[in-house]
Amino acid sequence: MERSLAELALYLNAEVQGDKKRVITGCATLDNADVNQLSFIYDNKYLPALRITKAGVVILSSSFIGECPVDALLVENPYLAYAKAAGFLLESQEESVGIHPSANIGKNCSIPASCIVKANAVIADNVSLGENCTIGYSSVIESGCRIGADTVIMSRATICHDVIIGKRVLIHSGAVIGGDGFGFAKDGECWVKIPQIGTVILGDNTDIGANTTIDRGALGDTVIGNGVKIDNQVQIAHNVVIGDNTAIAACTGIAGSSLIGKNCTLAGGVGLVGHISLVDGVHITAMTMVTSSINKSGVYSSGTPFQKNSDWLKNAVRFKQLNKLFKTINKKQIK
Amino acid sequence: MERSLAELALYLNAEVQGDKKRVITGCATLDNADVNQLSFIYDNKYLPALRITKAGVVILSSSFIGECPVDALLVENPYLAYAKAAGFLLESQEESVGIHPSANIGKNCSIPASCIVKANAVIADNVSLGENCTIGYSSVIESGCRIGADTVIMSRATICHDVIIGKRVLIHSGAVIGGDGFGFAKDGECWVKIPQIGTVILGDNTDIGANTTIDRGALGDTVIGNGVKIDNQVQIAHNVVIGDNTAIAACTGIAGSSLIGKNCTLAGGVGLVGHISLVDGVHITAMTMVTSSINKSGVYSSGTPFQKNSDWLKNAVRFKQLNKLFKTINKKQIK
Amino acid sequence: MERSLAELALYLNAEVQGDKKRVITGCATLDNADVNQLSFIYDNKYLPALRITKAGVVILSSSFIGECPVDALLVENPYLAYAKAAGFLLESQEESVGIHPSANIGKNCSIPASCIVKANAVIADNVSLGENCTIGYSSVIESGCRIGADTVIMSRATICHDVIIGKRVLIHSGAVIGGDGFGFAKDGECWVKIPQIGTVILGDNTDIGANTTIDRGALGDTVIGNGVKIDNQVQIAHNVVIGDNTAIAACTGIAGSSLIGKNCTLAGGVGLVGHISLVDGVHITAMTMVTSSINKSGVYSSGTPFQKNSDWLKNAVRFKQLNKLFKTINKKQIK
Repeated sequence: MERSLAELALYLNAEVQGDKKRVITGCATLDNADVNQLSFIYDNKYLPALRITKAGVVILSSSFIGECPVDALLVENPYLAYAKAAGFLLESQEESVGIHPSANIGKNCSIPASCIVKANAVIADNVSLGENCTIGYSSVIESGCRIGADTVIMSRATICHDVIIGKRVLIHSGAVIGGDGFGFAKDGECWVKIPQIGTVILGDNTDIGANTTIDRGALGDTVIGNGVKIDNQVQIAHNVVIGDNTAIAACTGIAGSSLIGKNCTLAGGVGLVGHISLVDGVHITAMTMVTSSINKSGVYSSGTPFQKNSDWLKNAVRFKQLNKLFKTINKKQIK
Repeated sequence: MERSLAELALYLNAEVQGDKKRVITGCATLDNADVNQLSFIYDNKYLPALRITKAGVVILSSSFIGECPVDALLVENPYLAYAKAAGFLLESQEESVGIHPSANIGKNCSIPASCIVKANAVIADNVSLGENCTIGYSSVIESGCRIGADTVIMSRATICHDVIIGKRVLIHSGAVIGGDGFGFAKDGECWVKIPQIGTVILGDNTDIGANTTIDRGALGDTVIGNGVKIDNQVQIAHNVVIGDNTAIAACTGIAGSSLIGKNCTLAGGVGLVGHISLVDGVHITAMTMVTSSINKSGVYSSGTPFQKNSDWLKNAVRFKQLNKLFKTINKKQIK
Repeated sequence: MERSLAELALYLNAEVQGDKKRVITGCATLDNADVNQLSFIYDNKYLPALRITKAGVVILSSSFIGECPVDALLVENPYLAYAKAAGFLLESQEESVGIHPSANIGKNCSIPASCIVKANAVIADNVSLGENCTIGYSSVIESGCRIGADTVIMSRATICHDVIIGKRVLIHSGAVIGGDGFGFAKDGECWVKIPQIGTVILGDNTDIGANTTIDRGALGDTVIGNGVKIDNQVQIAHNVVIGDNTAIAACTGIAGSSLIGKNCTLAGGVGLVGHISLVDGVHITAMTMVTSSINKSGVYSSGTPFQKNSDWLKNAVRFKQLNKLFKTINKKQIK
C-alpha cells in the first residue's frame, strides 16, 4: 500500500530529510528503485549505487547522509529499519476472509470468521484456530490442533494431530510439524516401533521453513521457544527443546532429546547428535558436527578446508596416519 | 483403550507384581504418569524418578523391582516391552472406514471396504490396496500402484506411478516414493534426460519418514528390504538396494546403485557415494562420508571434532599442509 | 509406443545392423531385455551380458559390434543415444487434456486447451500456462505465476506466487519453488522478518527434484539458468544465481546470494556458504564445504576419509593438536 515519508518516519522513529509528503509504494535495490520506491544502505560497498540511485527515499544512517542524492530516512540501524519499513509497506495486501467451499472442515472445530481457509485445505476434527489465521491451499491440519491468532500456514503444509502452535507463527510450504519421532526397540533383528505419544509445541513468533520437519515427542513434547527462526529442510527430532530467539539455517539436523539454549545460531548443514545440550549464545558455523555438549557460549566449528581435489587427496590420506605420526614424533623428538 | 495388568502381562509375557485387575489407559514418563498410566525404566539414571513415581504400573527388569513403589510388570527387556505395551494400549483408536466423498478415485481401482481413504486423497487409475489400508488426507497414489494390507500412508505423501508397497508399511507426510532418478547423458554442454523406467519396491514392515525421497530405478528397480526403518529427509537414489532390518537416520543421502546389507545402521547426515556396497552389519556414525565399499562388518566414521572456532581455524589450515609435513618428516627423521 | 529399427535409426542418426522392420516397444537391461525391447552397452564390464542378451536390438559403438549376438544400432555415444531412444519410445503416453472437475482455478487465468490439470490441483488467480503444460495431482500454483509451454509439474508440488518458469521444465513432487528466503534483522534479541519481495526465475529445460526448495529473492530474484538439473532435497537460498547446464546432486545446500557458473557440477551433500562465486566449469566432490569463491575451473574437495571407528577416534583427536605439532616441528627441526 501507499505510505508517505511522514508515515514511514513515524513508524520507524526516523528523521526525514526531504519531502515528508512524498508517497512510497514499494521497495527495490538502490540500482533498481524508482521514484515511488524505497531503498536502503548499510554497508560501504553500496556507496557507488547510492550516489546514482533514483529511489524516492533511502533509509540510511548519518554516515551516509552526505552521499545521498535523494530524500532520506535517517535511522540508527538501517538494516533493521528497512525490514520494518518493508513489512509496513506490504502489510495490507487484503485477502477476503472465510472458508473456501472446497476446504474440508471436520467436526467440533473453532474457526473465527476473521480466518482465511483456502481452497482444498483440510481441517480435521476438534481443531481450534485463533483470530486472523490463514490456512493455505491444500494444507492439512489434523485433528486436535490448536493454533494461535495471526498465524499463517502457507500452501501444502502438514500439522499433525494435537500439535500446539503459538501466535504470529509463519509455516512454509511442505513443512511437517508433528510427524512421529524415529523411535524403535530391537526385538532380535527386528525393530518394534515405540509409539510417539508426545506432541510439538511451537512458540509465538516462530518461523518454519519449507520442507522442514519437526517430530513429535516420544513421551514428553518437542518444544520450540518463542521467536525461534528455522530455515528450509531442517530436521528436528523428537523431544528436542530449543530456547527463545535461536535461529537455525537450512539443512541442519538435530537428533533426539538435545537441548539448545536461547539466542543461539546454527549455520547451514550443521549436525547435532542426540542427548546433548548447548548453553545460551552458542554459534555453530556451517556443516559442523557437534558430538558433545557445549557449556560455554562462543563460536564453534569443525570440518576441513576445501582444496583442489589433487591436493586434497594427498592430504586426506595423511589424516589416517595422524596418530601414528604423533606417536613417532613424541617418541623421537622430545629428546 | 483400557487394558488390565493381567491383559498386559499376557501380551508381554510379563510377571505382574501387584493388582492384576488394575486398569491402564495410557503411557507417561515416570515423572508425569498418574495411577491410570503405565511407565517404564531401563537405565539407572531414572532411579530417582522411579522411587517417587505415581504411575499405575512400571515395566522393569528384576534389578529395579526393589526400588519400585507401585505395581510392576517384570520383563527381561523393559525398553522393548514398553514399545509393545504402548502399541497395545493405543491400537484400537477406531476410525470409520470408507472413502471420503472429497477423495478422487480413478478407474479400475481395487479398494477393499476395510480401507480408509481420507478427505482430498487422490487415487489414480489401476491402483490396488490390501485390506485395512489407510490413505491420509491429501495424499496422492498415482496410477498402477499396489499397496499391501494394513499399510498406512499419512497425510500428504506421494506414491508415484507403479510403485509396489508391502504390508504393514507406514509412510509419513511429505514422503515421495518413486520420483524419477537423477539420470542424464551429456550432449555437448546439455543434459539429456534418461527416462527412469524402473520402480520402487518397499518391503513389508518398512517405515518411511517425513519428507524422505526414494527414487525409482533407471532400468531395474530400487528395492527396500523388509523391516527397513528410514527416518525423515533421507534421500535414496535410483537402483539402491537395502537389506532387511537396516535403519537409516535423518538427513542421510545414498547415491545411485549402492547396495547396503542387512542389519546395518546409518546415523544422521551420512553420505554414501554411488556404485558401492556395504556388507551386513555395518554401522556408520553421524555425518560420515562413505566413499568406497565396506567388506567387513563393524563401525566406521569420518570427519573432524568440533572446537572453538579460533582453534579450529588454526588447525584446519594445517590440514592443507599435512602431506608436505609428512614428506619433510619422512625425509629428515627416519635417519 | 512402437518404433521400428528404421525409425529409431533415423531419430538417433544410427546405422542399423539387422532387420530394419523389427519393432521395439520398450527398454530393459541386457540381462532382462526380450525380443521386443531395446538395450545398450557403453562399458566393457557389461560384455558378458552382451554376449548372451536376448534383446531385440542393442545400441552400441563400433568396438562392441563384433560381440553382439542380436540386431544393433551403431552410434558414437551409446549412453546418449540410449537416453534419446528411451525418451522417443516413451514419449506418446497420451493423457486426456483438460481441467479435472475437482481442480480449483482462480480468476483471470490463461490455461490453453492443450494443458492437463489433474485432480485436486489448485491454480490461483492471474496464472498463465503455456501450451501443453501438465499440472499434477494436488499441486498448488499460487497467484501470478507464469509457466512456459511443455512444462510438467508432477503431483503435489508448490509454485509460490509470481514465480516465472520456462519451457520444457520438469518439477517433481514436493518441490517448493519461491518460498520466502531466510532473511531477518536483529532487534535486540528478537528477529524481524525482512519481507522477501523478489521472485524465482527458472530457465528453460530445467529439472527440479523431489522435495527440493528454491527460495525467492529478498529484493532481486533467484535465477536458475537454462538446462540446469537439480536433484532431490537440494536447498537453494534467496538471490542465488546458477549458470546454464550446471547440475546439482541431492542434499546439497547453497546459501544466499552465491553465484555459480555455467557447466558446473556439485555432487551430493555439498554446502556453499553465502555471497561467494564459482566460475564456469567448477566441479565439487561429495560433501565438500565450500567457504570461499573459486576463480579457476577444476575439481575441488574437502573432508576426511572414513575409517574403522576405533582408528578414526585416535586420528580425529590429533586434528585438534595439528597446529601445535606444526609449531613444535617448525621450531625444532628446521635447524
